[in-house]
Amino acid sequence: MARAAREASERLAGRVRETPLDRSPIFSERTGANVYFKRENLQHTGSFKLRGAMNRILTLDPETRDAGVVTASSGNHGAAVAYAMQSLGVDGVIFVPEQTASTKVQAIRSYGGKLEFFGSDGLDTELHAREYAAEHGMTYISPYNDPAVMAGQGSCGVEIVRQLERVDSVFIAVGGGGLIGGVGSVLKQSGSPEVVGCQPQNSPVMARSVAAGHIVDMPSAPTLSDGTAGGIEAGAITFDVCRAVTDRFEVVDEDEIAAAMRDFMDAEHQLIEGAAGVAVAALRRAGESLAGKNVVVLICGANLSRESLRTVIA
Amino acid sequence: MARAAREASERLAGRVRETPLDRSPIFSERTGANVYFKRENLQHTGSFKLRGAMNRILTLDPETRDAGVVTASSGNHGAAVAYAMQSLGVDGVIFVPEQTASTKVQAIRSYGGKLEFFGSDGLDTELHAREYAAEHGMTYISPYNDPAVMAGQGSCGVEIVRQLERVDSVFIAVGGGGLIGGVGSVLKQSGSPEVVGCQPQNSPVMARSVAAGHIVDMPSAPTLSDGTAGGIEAGAITFDVCRAVTDRFEVVDEDEIAAAMRDFMDAEHQLIEGAAGVAVAALRRAGESLAGKNVVVLICGANLSRESLRTVIA
Repeated sequence: MARAAREASERLAGRVRETPLDRSPIFSERTGANVYFKRENLQHTGSFKLRGAMNRILTLDPETRDAGVVTASSGNHGAAVAYAMQSLGVDGVIFVPEQTASTKVQAIRSYGGKLEFFGSDGLDTELHAREYAAEHGMTYISPYNDPAVMAGQGSCGVEIVRQLERVDSVFIAVGGGGLIGGVGSVLKQSGSPEVVGCQPQNSPVMARSVAAGHIVDMPSAPTLSDGTAGGIEAGAITFDVCRAVTDRFEVVDEDEIAAAMRDFMDAEHQLIEGAAGVAVAALRRAGESLAGKNVVVLICGANLSRESLRTVIA
Repeated sequence: MARAAREASERLAGRVRETPLDRSPIFSERTGANVYFKRENLQHTGSFKLRGAMNRILTLDPETRDAGVVTASSGNHGAAVAYAMQSLGVDGVIFVPEQTASTKVQAIRSYGGKLEFFGSDGLDTELHAREYAAEHGMTYISPYNDPAVMAGQGSCGVEIVRQLERVDSVFIAVGGGGLIGGVGSVLKQSGSPEVVGCQPQNSPVMARSVAAGHIVDMPSAPTLSDGTAGGIEAGAITFDVCRAVTDRFEVVDEDEIAAAMRDFMDAEHQLIEGAAGVAVAALRRAGESLAGKNVVVLICGANLSRESLRTVIA
């Protein structure tokens, strides 16, 4: 995976933004560590998801690429695929559930994506998208369960290695495991950082799965970290990679996520989404135990609804 | 001024961030223009003010620099001077009013700035800071009324010229006039863009002054755009430059500013301060009259209080 991520990084050069890795004076002072934020919130489309989507499309053979791509996502992955399609001149369709918020629809359409509504929940939409892809000879792009997607996310780790000589500890929010799998593989290969997987208490599926030794099927409650919420596909290739590279999990509750988002906004003056708040919350919990270390917190995205923002700062 | 700004730009290379100039798909689609945001909200300290503060200190002769600098500001300029002092290893003091919000105090201190409280309003604090500087043989750094500060802000314009081949129209929030003076001078020298000065209705001092042909003394009401609010110093050197480079002013009300801030956050997923909202509000008002043009909106900063954010998204 580390090699695939390095190849992805070369392939993606000039197509995704090399995001800043900035030392935070305030968080560093508080913890006694050197705290660095890897700002994927500033990635095109406002999330790291562009890396995986772009790498997936770039690794299709020309004929397959010409046949077009399909995905099902109203969130960061959908926006990423839309952006990648337009940027690479590839046809395709992004399916979203019928009740998708208009701001999300607008975001996807603004990237030039052909958007179609189907079904009332994410699973219906996904099944339809997969069928549609099969019927039309098009490629379905998974948000995480795909080696090329995971390798694409790993390009973020390649940048971190280039940007900071020594990483002692890294905090990464975990959903399907594509991001931590890709980034963790790169970091573990070039040093021996502690990799901390961060999840919301309301949907700690990967943490519970790794503890159980297999992917578990469990209900999720609503969470500010909607980007990491929900089940993991049976047989997902991310599971083994994630298990191999993650040293430990931190599971944080909704109050901790909201406090972390407020804290980050006050100190760093940037909007972050709930999933990024999960990683910052885990950092806050670790606090002074990190003293003296070089710590990287992956700020995975900036896309939160106005309603979520209201909840956070209420 | 354009030449001084170009010199400042060279001097500041590697010391301030070259901020992205990004085309916004959503705002472009809506207006039929190519709308670009110049993201000074991503500048170190979260505002363009770092450019002017840094350039001012860098242009002091060595002896004067060693004697240290003084300023009076709890806002973006104070944070910028604190950051510049630490980054350049220069001593000095930043005076802030006694009732300054703790988040602002924390920001200035996190940049290593020596902070002292004095007085109950900004004017008291400023007068004290000037006296303190004179008594101690130190240099008082004005937030705008200084050629080196204005030239530093102008370095932002040098980047714009480098980043975009043709600028037809540029929207810039105006307070003391340092930013629009510096940036406008550079843009006018390298092309013929329309320069639009943007001010809040609650404190349109420069717009009224330019209309009157001299700096007017007038009361200001509270505004979300606290960064541009307040009077202009008698005899300010920015007045003539600002008058020369600004083609017209747009004056926007508080509802328009709040709507623009919400709109920007929804579409761009980044926090912006009220002053940046003023420029976005003027863009929104111009709307489709900009069709076909290359339009730059200067997003001057990201620093807004949680209270202001609550007001905006309530």
